[in-house]
Amino acid sequence: MTNYQKILDEIYEEIKPYLKEGKVANYIPALAQVEPNQFAMSINLFDGSSYHVGNSDKKFSIQSISKVFTFTKALKIYRKKLYNKIGKEPSGNPFNSLVQLEYESGIPRNPFINAGAIVVTDTLLSNYKTKDDTFDNILKFIQDISDEPNISFDKEVCFSEYEHGFRNVALANLMKSFNNIDNNIDDVIRTYFKQCSITMSTKELSRSMLFLANHGVDPITNKEFITQSQAKRINSIMLTCGHYDASGDFAFHVGLPGKSGVGGGIVAVVPKLMSICVFSPQLNSWGNSLAGTKALELFTSKTGLSIF
Amino acid sequence: MTNYQKILDEIYEEIKPYLKEGKVANYIPALAQVEPNQFAMSINLFDGSSYHVGNSDKKFSIQSISKVFTFTKALKIYRKKLYNKIGKEPSGNPFNSLVQLEYESGIPRNPFINAGAIVVTDTLLSNYKTKDDTFDNILKFIQDISDEPNISFDKEVCFSEYEHGFRNVALANLMKSFNNIDNNIDDVIRTYFKQCSITMSTKELSRSMLFLANHGVDPITNKEFITQSQAKRINSIMLTCGHYDASGDFAFHVGLPGKSGVGGGIVAVVPKLMSICVFSPQLNSWGNSLAGTKALELFTSKTGLSIF
Amino acid sequence: MTNYQKILDEIYEEIKPYLKEGKVANYIPALAQVEPNQFAMSINLFDGSSYHVGNSDKKFSIQSISKVFTFTKALKIYRKKLYNKIGKEPSGNPFNSLVQLEYESGIPRNPFINAGAIVVTDTLLSNYKTKDDTFDNILKFIQDISDEPNISFDKEVCFSEYEHGFRNVALANLMKSFNNIDNNIDDVIRTYFKQCSITMSTKELSRSMLFLANHGVDPITNKEFITQSQAKRINSIMLTCGHYDASGDFAFHVGLPGKSGVGGGIVAVVPKLMSICVFSPQLNSWGNSLAGTKALELFTSKTGLSIF
Amino acid sequence: MTNYQKILDEIYEEIKPYLKEGKVANYIPALAQVEPNQFAMSINLFDGSSYHVGNSDKKFSIQSISKVFTFTKALKIYRKKLYNKIGKEPSGNPFNSLVQLEYESGIPRNPFINAGAIVVTDTLLSNYKTKDDTFDNILKFIQDISDEPNISFDKEVCFSEYEHGFRNVALANLMKSFNNIDNNIDDVIRTYFKQCSITMSTKELSRSMLFLANHGVDPITNKEFITQSQAKRINSIMLTCGHYDASGDFAFHVGLPGKSGVGGGIVAVVPKLMSICVFSPQLNSWGNSLAGTKALELFTSKTGLSIF
Repeated sequence: MTNYQKILDEIYEEIKPYLKEGKVANYIPALAQVEPNQFAMSINLFDGSSYHVGNSDKKFSIQSISKVFTFTKALKIYRKKLYNKIGKEPSGNPFNSLVQLEYESGIPRNPFINAGAIVVTDTLLSNYKTKDDTFDNILKFIQDISDEPNISFDKEVCFSEYEHGFRNVALANLMKSFNNIDNNIDDVIRTYFKQCSITMSTKELSRSMLFLANHGVDPITNKEFITQSQAKRINSIMLTCGHYDASGDFAFHVGLPGKSGVGGGIVAVVPKLMSICVFSPQLNSWGNSLAGTKALELFTSKTGLSIF
Repeated sequence: MTNYQKILDEIYEEIKPYLKEGKVANYIPALAQVEPNQFAMSINLFDGSSYHVGNSDKKFSIQSISKVFTFTKALKIYRKKLYNKIGKEPSGNPFNSLVQLEYESGIPRNPFINAGAIVVTDTLLSNYKTKDDTFDNILKFIQDISDEPNISFDKEVCFSEYEHGFRNVALANLMKSFNNIDNNIDDVIRTYFKQCSITMSTKELSRSMLFLANHGVDPITNKEFITQSQAKRINSIMLTCGHYDASGDFAFHVGLPGKSGVGGGIVAVVPKLMSICVFSPQLNSWGNSLAGTKALELFTSKTGLSIF
Repeated sequence: MTNYQKILDEIYEEIKPYLKEGKVANYIPALAQVEPNQFAMSINLFDGSSYHVGNSDKKFSIQSISKVFTFTKALKIYRKKLYNKIGKEPSGNPFNSLVQLEYESGIPRNPFINAGAIVVTDTLLSNYKTKDDTFDNILKFIQDISDEPNISFDKEVCFSEYEHGFRNVALANLMKSFNNIDNNIDDVIRTYFKQCSITMSTKELSRSMLFLANHGVDPITNKEFITQSQAKRINSIMLTCGHYDASGDFAFHVGLPGKSGVGGGIVAVVPKLMSICVFSPQLNSWGNSLAGTKALELFTSKTGLSIF
Repeated sequence: MTNYQKILDEIYEEIKPYLKEGKVANYIPALAQVEPNQFAMSINLFDGSSYHVGNSDKKFSIQSISKVFTFTKALKIYRKKLYNKIGKEPSGNPFNSLVQLEYESGIPRNPFINAGAIVVTDTLLSNYKTKDDTFDNILKFIQDISDEPNISFDKEVCFSEYEHGFRNVALANLMKSFNNIDNNIDDVIRTYFKQCSITMSTKELSRSMLFLANHGVDPITNKEFITQSQAKRINSIMLTCGHYDASGDFAFHVGLPGKSGVGGGIVAVVPKLMSICVFSPQLNSWGNSLAGTKALELFTSKTGLSIF
């Protein structure tokens, strides 16, 4: 049987030189102050066992990883109708964000670029009516899938995002001009920034992804969160679109469905086997955790668990 | 044990209504004349067994499927250096083909869009010097991996491509202006069109992909064509970039690495298990075989073999 | 001596068939209700004489014509420093509005596209501090140059613009993300929509442009509003950028510096000779008054006053 | 009466510091070798008088100035039908050249960007059948309008253009793919490069533009080359599109219809009064003669002859 703890320990050793490279996200002061050289990694198996290395209890800003949770929630509610409002294709170039949105009449290419995640949050607002109820339900869902009631958000990060989020407000307004946002823009944007500023540890995040590795059903609690078909499709979108303009590179080097956040976290799943989370706040030039990406590459090399 | 023949037979029945939909490629006369309602499907396992339905001996124009072969060949020769000339990211929007090429200084996004495949052919020309030697080596490689000496190309299709291929010539010249084409443009283009006009049956194409399913080694002849790492990476690029602007959709619905051609063929692999080829010449709006895509979706639904 | 009244009367006759063509602006209800078949035209000479045809006292929404007034005002205040924030080149394609803004780091191509006019209004807010003072000074300036104290704005149109102005809010936020907007976005946008909803007649608008025809000095009151050099440059920008993506067409057919608004008005100047305003609310496919453009073309044909 | 010789002499003095700035075109070796600090300027009046400063007999490569001549010739032959194949709007951004051409289905925005000029040359080939006859007729036309039989082209420059003209070949092929090129691409391209490599002096070029200043009729020989309406329209397109992405800037600072070439020449007209040519081979960042642009700005400042 594979000795996962040993593999994680090896990775921790081999990753050390990479902890000096990259740059912490600095577009908002609250994130720029994070201690840069941190590293943690966790994996969760279907039998309930889990393995950890580094400070796996340290909470960090999940940022875009929240897009997986809200998309899952919205897909559960709206099913295929959701694809009237967002696509499922890679977006090409980050430079294109506004370009493609304008060319494609306000329909974002996928739920994991900012424009797409904003639309997803808008659909949740349509369902839960108030922005407080919407956020409570997002948080409740994350608590359910991670089987952990103590998850909340960082007010300072949230406020800081709001103070500097003009480009996201631009995206929301452009989509509203195409009738692809249904609620008040300020409500949508505030809810979106709140979900991005949720804080979790690698231990919690890895645990929260287990249902996606197991086709929608938490293998420990046996709760079915989504259907098998929905789980496969979320995984496929993570693989093709989970790392912005480095999605191809991540598929190429790591070979697992995954989603990164500028807070330095990356979640990934090995379908039918396990969930993974890695954290290291310094980012590569595409905005993904540098050491985190490297750690996942080492992991699939050592275990042969790439889906390819 | 799975009864693959029964599954193929079922798919053939269920696919019939779809054979009336879509449109045969009509950008060149030679392809427009193809009989539209054809269907064939083949799978090859590692033990040498294979299963077929429809007219699996019928040869058709492989078109863009040839890009997998030339990319494999070039990767074998140049290894990582090849990525100085082409990327490995999805290209976003077909409308962008020239846009992104210009914006990204003549470096195509991946080897499976036309610009990328033209660069790949150019690198083969640099290696084999003359266009005849280059094409002979491409053909020889395809004969080797498919274990089938009788493979050739359709002169009429090749000539027709050349007569109407102005956009591809535009791409080649644009890249040459950025110094990303090293050989005479007419030689590159003629070789490229020749490789596109190679004809093969589903039986041959499925057989030819077996080494990619088995991490670079033909499981029957035990010949190693490329390394395990290279095979995984070709598979990951097929998954993220294999179906133009419907790559996300294909990953979403089918969940296998694959590559389509406008001749109506699609090849796919189930890593560590099998290779597949389907043929039906009528295309959906993204230029991929309509019934072929549906057949592959049925296949992964029935067998549970999606990688997700 | 030219009989201008006769020429205007002829134009009024010849223009009649065109009054049935085109479409009233319908992006906001308040504009969509305008009576479609109206026509009026006014010219003002340096000796104080003026000529009119149609209902030249009828007030209409000046819309983008206000961009000439705010740009003039901002140029007077900031002089060449203003060009750090906006360019003076034609913008190419309307489809590109957000594209170019993103590509060119939030610096609009010229002051007559929406993004550019929003920046101009932002600079006026920086100068006058409050949005009320800013608008009062804009209005006061228009009253001065038109020598007419009774000019105000239409509250219903202003509110309607604000209710539907998501794309303009998107532009403002995108520019703010590039630090090219200095004030509160809502203040900038409200002031911008207020200036667009100012109402004037052809009589008033033609009078207001006389200083631009006369190199910055009102030839009747002798007030110098801007320098000769500034006046020439405003005229050159009107010629190259005054009619969105039909600026070349307007230069080609009319041959005068001019600026149109979606309310159906067009102002133009014959340098060193006269100012002109025409009004007819139905628009051609580029968003410029259809009969108005035709009337100006007839005018330069009949008088030989094209600058070319 | 204005002392034009004195004005030219003053300009020559004042321009001297600018002769050290800018960079000679270096995309082909044949142009890169030009002696950089040269300057010459010529003007021609309707009474036959002409004024010159610097080495006004020195022949240089006219490059894009040839686009005015071929467009004039094609407009004479095809009249309004020519606008089915090319537009008359500014093109925005040079970066967009291929972008807009693709977006707008192969119809270039105007006759003065490369794509547009290539289409114009293609229409001349359709009229004169062979490429030799076509070029002979282009040359003959230039000899006629300049009243000077000794005009020819530079074979070395022509060959050098052809050796490095991949981007232009890309444009031609892209347009051919949209059916907007009717003749053999190599014939079109060779003729185009030949016209660009014609050499003329400022004396000859200024003389050649006199008919455009005088509404289509050479004021000295009284030959009518085109109609008054055509002449006005060519002038309007020179004003809005004559200097690539610095057309607005040229209109703004100089205020005259003009056309530049990367050989360092700029022609301009003062409608109803005179024609001008200036030459200085070092270019500003937009590819227009740096000292030449400055000289023309000084000229309109000193004479008050801006059309605005």
